[in-house]
Amino acid sequence: MTNEEIQRDTQFMRRAIDEARAALAEGEIPIGAVVVAKGRIISRAHNCTEMLNDVTAHAEMLAITAAENALGGKYLTDCTLYVTVEPCPMCAGAIGWAQIPRVVYGAPDDKRGYRRYAPNALHPRANAIGDILEEECRQLMVDFFAMKRR
Amino acid sequence: MTNEEIQRDTQFMRRAIDEARAALAEGEIPIGAVVVAKGRIISRAHNCTEMLNDVTAHAEMLAITAAENALGGKYLTDCTLYVTVEPCPMCAGAIGWAQIPRVVYGAPDDKRGYRRYAPNALHPRANAIGDILEEECRQLMVDFFAMKRR
Repeated sequence: MTNEEIQRDTQFMRRAIDEARAALAEGEIPIGAVVVAKGRIISRAHNCTEMLNDVTAHAEMLAITAAENALGGKYLTDCTLYVTVEPCPMCAGAIGWAQIPRVVYGAPDDKRGYRRYAPNALHPRANAIGDILEEECRQLMVDFFAMKRR
Repeated sequence: MTNEEIQRDTQFMRRAIDEARAALAEGEIPIGAVVVAKGRIISRAHNCTEMLNDVTAHAEMLAITAAENALGGKYLTDCTLYVTVEPCPMCAGAIGWAQIPRVVYGAPDDKRGYRRYAPNALHPRANAIGDILEEECRQLMVDFFAMKRR
């Protein structure tokens, strides 16, 4: 990747982190996502599983649905999804169905992530990169679970 | 399984097939699902990806969200999910998050099903059985795709 690409990815991951912080403020597991098309954010969302009482309300799922609404179509073939934590198999499956060609995540999730449970769930030609602002993304999760244990 | 259990599963699968037929009538890929708790259907849904322009609107996802709303909680630990076609990795992931202990499906999906892409996405103690009214469930899919090709 060129320096310019890394800079662009870092910039959009900061917006996903803003979403994760909003989740944290609401007592949700702090994961945020944004969908970018042609250099512009077309949707942003954070995990809402507690508020909605719904296990399907992960940041990526909500961001995908919102992006599809924004574009008026169900395929996101020109989009990049940024998410602060490696997607789970459910979200990876949704990313695959939406044919999102590029996924950028922050912290890996070795326990629950798609790379362990569904390594081929993304579209066959999709490209995934991790470890963008990894420490910041991970720290939000660490802080949340430390707070919960108190 | 006892005859009584097979009869009960067949009965609830017929309700899932009713949902699949409703999908077919709306031009959707004909897949239907119901969630059953304590011998009672608490949610029913069919695939709405075309109408909602949303790849996440699979029958199972909508049925899970509706069941969580019906019960007022996000875990479906006393429920069985019936679905006319083997769940995809996205839906299997959602079934796992909701901790649904039992899944009954009709037709297997060797190309896109979770058993191929995410065999461990269900909850570790979950139980899945297939081939309940398989022919009827499969025929709906065959008819749909034959109609589309016309």
